Amino acid sequence: METIKDLYKNQEKYINTDVEVAGWVRTVRDSKTFGFIEMNDGSFFNNLQIVFGNELENFSEICKLTISSTIIVKGTIVKTENAKQPFELHAKSIEIFNLSDSSYPLQKKRHSFEYLRTVAHLRPRTNTFSAIFRIRSVAAFAIHEYFQSNGYVYVNTPIITCADCEGSAEMFKLTTLDLDKPLPQKDGKTDFSNDLFGKKAYITGSGQLHGETFASAFGKIYTFGPTLRSEDSNTKTHANEFWMVEPEISFCDLDGLMDIEEDFLKFVVKEVLDKCPEEIDFCDKFIQNGLKEKLTKLLDSNFVRIDHHDVIDILKKADRNWEFKPEYDGDLAKEHEKYITEYFNGPVFVKNWPKDIKSYYMKVNPDGKTVAGVDLEVPGAGEIMGGSQREENYDTLVARMKEMGIAEEPLYWYLELRKYGSNIHSGFGLGFERLLMYITGMENIRDVIPYPRTPNNCDF
Amino acid sequence: METIKDLYKNQEKYINTDVEVAGWVRTVRDSKTFGFIEMNDGSFFNNLQIVFGNELENFSEICKLTISSTIIVKGTIVKTENAKQPFELHAKSIEIFNLSDSSYPLQKKRHSFEYLRTVAHLRPRTNTFSAIFRIRSVAAFAIHEYFQSNGYVYVNTPIITCADCEGSAEMFKLTTLDLDKPLPQKDGKTDFSNDLFGKKAYITGSGQLHGETFASAFGKIYTFGPTLRSEDSNTKTHANEFWMVEPEISFCDLDGLMDIEEDFLKFVVKEVLDKCPEEIDFCDKFIQNGLKEKLTKLLDSNFVRIDHHDVIDILKKADRNWEFKPEYDGDLAKEHEKYITEYFNGPVFVKNWPKDIKSYYMKVNPDGKTVAGVDLEVPGAGEIMGGSQREENYDTLVARMKEMGIAEEPLYWYLELRKYGSNIHSGFGLGFERLLMYITGMENIRDVIPYPRTPNNCDF
Repeated sequence: METIKDLYKNQEKYINTDVEVAGWVRTVRDSKTFGFIEMNDGSFFNNLQIVFGNELENFSEICKLTISSTIIVKGTIVKTENAKQPFELHAKSIEIFNLSDSSYPLQKKRHSFEYLRTVAHLRPRTNTFSAIFRIRSVAAFAIHEYFQSNGYVYVNTPIITCADCEGSAEMFKLTTLDLDKPLPQKDGKTDFSNDLFGKKAYITGSGQLHGETFASAFGKIYTFGPTLRSEDSNTKTHANEFWMVEPEISFCDLDGLMDIEEDFLKFVVKEVLDKCPEEIDFCDKFIQNGLKEKLTKLLDSNFVRIDHHDVIDILKKADRNWEFKPEYDGDLAKEHEKYITEYFNGPVFVKNWPKDIKSYYMKVNPDGKTVAGVDLEVPGAGEIMGGSQREENYDTLVARMKEMGIAEEPLYWYLELRKYGSNIHSGFGLGFERLLMYITGMENIRDVIPYPRTPNNCDF
Repeated sequence: METIKDLYKNQEKYINTDVEVAGWVRTVRDSKTFGFIEMNDGSFFNNLQIVFGNELENFSEICKLTISSTIIVKGTIVKTENAKQPFELHAKSIEIFNLSDSSYPLQKKRHSFEYLRTVAHLRPRTNTFSAIFRIRSVAAFAIHEYFQSNGYVYVNTPIITCADCEGSAEMFKLTTLDLDKPLPQKDGKTDFSNDLFGKKAYITGSGQLHGETFASAFGKIYTFGPTLRSEDSNTKTHANEFWMVEPEISFCDLDGLMDIEEDFLKFVVKEVLDKCPEEIDFCDKFIQNGLKEKLTKLLDSNFVRIDHHDVIDILKKADRNWEFKPEYDGDLAKEHEKYITEYFNGPVFVKNWPKDIKSYYMKVNPDGKTVAGVDLEVPGAGEIMGGSQREENYDTLVARMKEMGIAEEPLYWYLELRKYGSNIHSGFGLGFERLLMYITGMENIRDVIPYPRTPNNCDF
């Protein structure tokens, strides 16, 4: 049996030969003596056009095929003069394996993305989600390829943790206790001794700290896996379950990190452009006009590198009425991110941030006021990567933890990295779905995740 | 800066040239006038030998280097006559970046695997875990490579679910409710309306059902991600967090599935043998004698395919005192699995199982008694893959669900696949850690997972 991808990729070979393909009906048109079926088997973005005539004994049944019916077709590949459809399949037999029920909800018309989320089990059969989820797969593999071919070791850091060190506010609790009954008590507190791990357990929101331990053994590592955060925020860019990439690199400072981030992002975008030309053309046409140009331009651009302080200077000088006033000791608002990428007309690394608004593990700069953190802002999507050089000095790190109210004891193993072979090292985190939104032009994170989980929404 | 891998892979190029490497001290030996350092930078399994002399101004400090100290070495690569160590680095300077504290727990002696689990943040620096976790990374990438190069789409199925359809016994509950206080009540029951998803949420133990929905759009898909199961079982082969691979293939029956499983397993084993020769040699020598031969033999073998019924025949005829009596309507015990792989002296597909001991979604065979399920048994590890042709007939599937007490309503979307373009399709699940135990020879699942989670054990 051949796939539609085989046929497209090896057209010359298949012309005038007999093939067998199986797939799903997208459309059927017929006249009295012949008809056309657009069929897709999932192997390729484009459909295969099938021509059938009334010499087939089940001609009348074929004419009545419903959308999404399953058929198995034998016939001959014939060249056409149509550029969009360079060949078609002249059917010798069409077996109807499953006639789709007429209640099939995706009839041939445009559906809103909101509606399609209610049929998440069927939406990958539409052109849009066929493109989106194929790009997702290709981008995911590109991420693995980049790191594996550059000597990184893939590490699966744990999802379950009992260390409440990241602040449990954004962490889900995980339990085997029966939540339909009153919780067991001991000494006036909930008794977790019969919970599976014998204590309170959480889902961690990051693999960075565990990743660092492996970077001190393998030099360069990366994680790539699902991340669960319990934020109760209903926005277009937040989901409670998403995938994250977190590389950690030993013997690498902030400049080295930015080199890697830039190289990495360009590689992934290039892979998608190379491997998904049909899907990108579709997204360019129907999702975000100018998408392809935006991505191509990214490949040729040199990302700007600028201190947070200098960004604030630019924002303050700008002739704008800011909703949020730019401050030297403050974060960047969405409007600032947008302005600065437009100002430089391309991706911008904003580095050396005021230490009080960044995490305790970021390397404190010699000025004592800023940390060697860096956010990458891209046009149209804002921040897509956040990274830093990590504090490698034991005493400074402990002091920072005290300053920020982080308990040391549960992180003794993280601190020990600074006692046993500490080194200058850096890492970053990439929200995979943010990257996909940038690459596909989709505006809602719910539309780049197969089955999105957001507050009050956990269907399927 | 060069990596040790660079030096090993391009030895000829580097002989008599100057290089700079950074890494961690494994051992130091010295005499009055010169000394040797074995250094590793994580890029490669083997160490780099560094020769240093007393012309270096910090000679005495170098002699006092502790294990796991971080050093940066400049010098010249010089050829040796030693096969194991074909070159060495003659140091011109050695910068001591971080002198490891003398309390470093992994001094140069053999440690038990049990002890090493208590220093999980440091154990990847040992030879054993350097080999194990590098193989883990290479095997993971091989899995992606296999599916991507064979036209599969990678799908990230959700971890969070609100459908209690798999039986919540093995499912963790996930909540944002405050477990340190009494649970909110309404009408005499726990009130989940203020929980993040507005209802009771779980962690799913499999992505198969969601995977099937995407296979009906893309033809061939695979998942590869962490799986959490709350089993309270303390064995060498159970962990509460592990990684699973779950491909689903449309237009594929049980025979086609076995072809894929065999091809897939051989590909992954071959990739590891090709890319990790040093690591496999190490495991063969120190973890499991005969490992390399076992793996090489697998590549050349044709996996036996035999019905469950015929396996029971063989077991019944065997001259053994079984602890568990082989039964035509029963499962295979570990002792049976062992016997049957030894009997055939290689991997064995056991297929067509009695339906009452298998899942509701497996295709019922024409005999009405068995289902088209298949387990792959391999010598020394027992079952490592379990798969089946899926029931594609709507009515049969519904009947099976009723028979086995599975609620239909929460799975309406799964059932709809049988209404809208149903097709003959199959899939399997592979426990990634079971595969790693087979490939490395490690006997405890805790030793192939970076940070294992098992009952009453959630450290780090």
